[in-house]
Amino acid sequence: MTLQDIHSPADIKGLDMAQLQMLATEIRKALLAKLSRHGGHIGPNLGMVEMSVAMHYVFDLPTDKIVYDVSHQSYVHKMLTGRMRAFVDQSHYDDVTGYTNPDESPTDIFKIGHTSTGVSLAGGLVKARELTGGHGNIIAVVGDGSLSGGEAFEGLDYAATLKSNFIIVVNDNDMSIAENHGGIYENLRLLRETDGASQCNLFRAMGLDYRYVAGGNDMVALVEAFRAVKDIDHPVVLHISTQKGKGYAPAEADKERFHFAGPFDLATGRPMSVSEAPDYGALTAEYLLRMMKEDRSIVAITAGTPGVIGFTPELRAQAGGQFVDVGIAEQEAVALASGIAKGGGKPFFGVVSSFLQRAYDQLSQDLSINGSPAVIGIFYGTVAGMTDVTHLGWFDIALISNIPGIVYLAPTCKEEYFAMLGWAMKQNRYPVALRVPGTSVVETGRMFPDDYSDIDSYAVARRGENVAVIAAGAFFGLGEKVADVLKDRGIDATLINPRFLSGLDRQLLLELATDHSVVVTLEDGVLDGGFGEKVARFYGAMPVKVQCYGIKKQFADGYDYKSMLEANRLTAPQIVEDVMRMLG
Amino acid sequence: MTLQDIHSPADIKGLDMAQLQMLATEIRKALLAKLSRHGGHIGPNLGMVEMSVAMHYVFDLPTDKIVYDVSHQSYVHKMLTGRMRAFVDQSHYDDVTGYTNPDESPTDIFKIGHTSTGVSLAGGLVKARELTGGHGNIIAVVGDGSLSGGEAFEGLDYAATLKSNFIIVVNDNDMSIAENHGGIYENLRLLRETDGASQCNLFRAMGLDYRYVAGGNDMVALVEAFRAVKDIDHPVVLHISTQKGKGYAPAEADKERFHFAGPFDLATGRPMSVSEAPDYGALTAEYLLRMMKEDRSIVAITAGTPGVIGFTPELRAQAGGQFVDVGIAEQEAVALASGIAKGGGKPFFGVVSSFLQRAYDQLSQDLSINGSPAVIGIFYGTVAGMTDVTHLGWFDIALISNIPGIVYLAPTCKEEYFAMLGWAMKQNRYPVALRVPGTSVVETGRMFPDDYSDIDSYAVARRGENVAVIAAGAFFGLGEKVADVLKDRGIDATLINPRFLSGLDRQLLLELATDHSVVVTLEDGVLDGGFGEKVARFYGAMPVKVQCYGIKKQFADGYDYKSMLEANRLTAPQIVEDVMRMLG
Repeated sequence: MTLQDIHSPADIKGLDMAQLQMLATEIRKALLAKLSRHGGHIGPNLGMVEMSVAMHYVFDLPTDKIVYDVSHQSYVHKMLTGRMRAFVDQSHYDDVTGYTNPDESPTDIFKIGHTSTGVSLAGGLVKARELTGGHGNIIAVVGDGSLSGGEAFEGLDYAATLKSNFIIVVNDNDMSIAENHGGIYENLRLLRETDGASQCNLFRAMGLDYRYVAGGNDMVALVEAFRAVKDIDHPVVLHISTQKGKGYAPAEADKERFHFAGPFDLATGRPMSVSEAPDYGALTAEYLLRMMKEDRSIVAITAGTPGVIGFTPELRAQAGGQFVDVGIAEQEAVALASGIAKGGGKPFFGVVSSFLQRAYDQLSQDLSINGSPAVIGIFYGTVAGMTDVTHLGWFDIALISNIPGIVYLAPTCKEEYFAMLGWAMKQNRYPVALRVPGTSVVETGRMFPDDYSDIDSYAVARRGENVAVIAAGAFFGLGEKVADVLKDRGIDATLINPRFLSGLDRQLLLELATDHSVVVTLEDGVLDGGFGEKVARFYGAMPVKVQCYGIKKQFADGYDYKSMLEANRLTAPQIVEDVMRMLG
Repeated sequence: MTLQDIHSPADIKGLDMAQLQMLATEIRKALLAKLSRHGGHIGPNLGMVEMSVAMHYVFDLPTDKIVYDVSHQSYVHKMLTGRMRAFVDQSHYDDVTGYTNPDESPTDIFKIGHTSTGVSLAGGLVKARELTGGHGNIIAVVGDGSLSGGEAFEGLDYAATLKSNFIIVVNDNDMSIAENHGGIYENLRLLRETDGASQCNLFRAMGLDYRYVAGGNDMVALVEAFRAVKDIDHPVVLHISTQKGKGYAPAEADKERFHFAGPFDLATGRPMSVSEAPDYGALTAEYLLRMMKEDRSIVAITAGTPGVIGFTPELRAQAGGQFVDVGIAEQEAVALASGIAKGGGKPFFGVVSSFLQRAYDQLSQDLSINGSPAVIGIFYGTVAGMTDVTHLGWFDIALISNIPGIVYLAPTCKEEYFAMLGWAMKQNRYPVALRVPGTSVVETGRMFPDDYSDIDSYAVARRGENVAVIAAGAFFGLGEKVADVLKDRGIDATLINPRFLSGLDRQLLLELATDHSVVVTLEDGVLDGGFGEKVARFYGAMPVKVQCYGIKKQFADGYDYKSMLEANRLTAPQIVEDVMRMLG
């Protein structure tokens, strides 16, 4: 049997153990071939090869249902459920997304990409089966890293109250994206070391039945374990020890680097291209480490993604107790930062835009109501960032800027980012969020003030008349282009860097109204609830015309950046065309 | 010693055990006297009398620091820290808020009111002490009910990694607001029954040291227990069994009713006033129970606040498996609802506006990206609701309506609420959120359509000209008043019920532009990120003048409703005055 012959799980049901093992070997080879050329989540999928095959061998989808938490480990599942071509035919690599996707197959139940949701969602399927009298096994597959998120805990806590079939597979590879952090990981280690026999057992303490499988990459052990729980009449945790990166020496050796990576040389594991360009993460880590040496109260915080803020294992070691990884637990990260700031420390929490969504209440309640002067760096908050529907960096402006009390700054370039960061870390009055401008570092060589305590004061970059362009953050460059093109058309536009996303410079806006008839706002995110709308409301009853530019409210998946800009009229020629029309 | 003589914890340091016990008796009496007249959190504070006295006897604030989770159980702490008058002198009852408040005393560290944040915030204080070389014990006091929230779990998980003094008091009264739900509560029960000796121990499994105290209302046992952990050099969980409502028979007998209540007759425990008026919670429960009997796939969900949606213990028993309390775990509630909807069930999750903040990511990722047709009822999303800074119902419009894909409906009265709820529960296409209109039930006797599938279609209540008033949800009544007053001024205004907070009726708005020069929007919430701003953006480049009415972005605490409306120009005369000015 060749991989191309597998069109559905039915095609592997007749295989014997030896054939299943051969299949796993073929799959791993194909996976490595694709991933080395295409990039993707390498370690998580290599570790799941045997388990995925065994699950599809024992269970019967779509009657039985598997919910993959995060779902970045679902590649083999996709190969076995009608999507093999996207893994073995290079011209079809992009036919599938990197996460489960109901648009691709009825065997994918949810679109997910954030951690810690799988048990909760699968628990809903269990409850629905109870309510509607349905059939089939419900299986949630959750990684050990995901267990640090509060939603996973809430899901397990509720699962223990269910009274029917529910199989919770804990795929324990002893790694999050980086190494795990948190008290529960000592218990997972103890359970691995005692072959699941320890009386001290987190899952049993939560009221769940529990079984341990040491051979998470052993087909025979897996098939046996899944058969033993198939059609079980109550919730059970199947704790399975797997090896992240299994079967590829470089990925086994450097699990963090091979969690997610771009194309690499299969023979050596080396990346195909190494960018020499600086990135905001590395620059941020360098900056913070320098400050930490001068001020022992400074602490950098990550929620399971140290790489985002440039903290490599070496730099983490250098920072020592001044670096904290709370695990994938954004709520904890924000509340902890508030507590540290209240206690006289100086925390910087660096986080991916779409992951900060998990801490709205903590931003509001734990941080802002308490006025704790913590600093939050938001990375990939940009249309130029991740394009997966679950990872869009478009929504943070509406999320953060409408919470009273948080100062949300939008630097326009590297120099302004560090000027603002420097002020944010020094001041002791406000919770400050900083929106890292875009993905690639833009150096302007310009000088910026080191004081931003005049809250909501905008900076006028060029004072013209009639047309004003208020261009926030990474879109300031677009604003400059618009102003330049307008100049060519004989219009001397005013160009403004608002700097603050969280409030209006009322005095400046009023002043603009005296000799401007058109105001344009540009923001690198969704319009709804965003920055421009505040300007539109301010001018609502005045004769000034306002046109807001940003992304229309929507979810998009795997979009092309340029097309996305064009579709939202976010190019200089389109904006100038609109302005000329407004000027009549 | 009389209570009036206690001005600070120093005043109780010299007492002996007998005197401390007498003090507790006096405090309980004073508490009951105030609460019976004033209302408040009764059960939680009665249960904490001895523990609060013992903590202040053993620890030295403010060098030592106590962080109360939720902090509704901090009344006795307030009595002992300079605020006794607010509890013994009726004319000063309102000198203090119902939660810890740093504005009142340096012994209060945080303003908090949501559950499950205490361990995380206190953990931050511990980390800050480590960074800055500070001194003192850090104590977090967290109730068993709060443990079901994911943030509490994240906090405990991180706490286990700390290497210095941290005392986590688990105040276990075997109750949340209602009875507890979730697998962890079986473990708490086991620990109580085994006097803390069971090997199956949630806290130990999380890597934490652990001690059990059976006598949570026994002064001698408590003082001994606190002395034993004072200055401990690592994190420890002190699991203390207390009795909710302790020392007041009616509160011991009906813990749910006495969790929080208004004034009551001290002799009998009966409420001083029983409203005969219907409320939206009770009406919702009645409606859902009727539907449940016809459709077994319907399920009502609460996150630890069944009373909010009118599900009394009796009605919960009637609903059986069609009622789910996930514990105080809003993330789980939303994700579970999404899973249930995806599995063919029909979930209704009823939640207090400010508590839904804890599930932004679940609304976006688990629910909306997946298009799960679950229904969410938002209660107290109104300026007329709770006035505690931690419980403001102002922010849900910005929270929900800017997430793509969620249909957010704003009924204007009881009849429209049930018409919309009926449609929401029948349809299978959208996640639908319903904003329960205000706090008191408004019956209009009007008829409303039973179909809202024409998404974003607004309803024109009166067609006039020149001035249009778009009045959303509970503020529709205000819109009617404005239109009436304008009529008196000779202006025949158009009045619109937008019905949808999550999108614009572009066709109608364009049509209005042909014969209207002023458009006014009214919304029962904060302006920033809200409904009106979308209208302002839409008309930004048109000659129509737009004025948005709502609350200015701010946190307020204990405000007066009428003054709040006036300060935001939310009265009909003020709005009409503005309109006349805009008309010139």
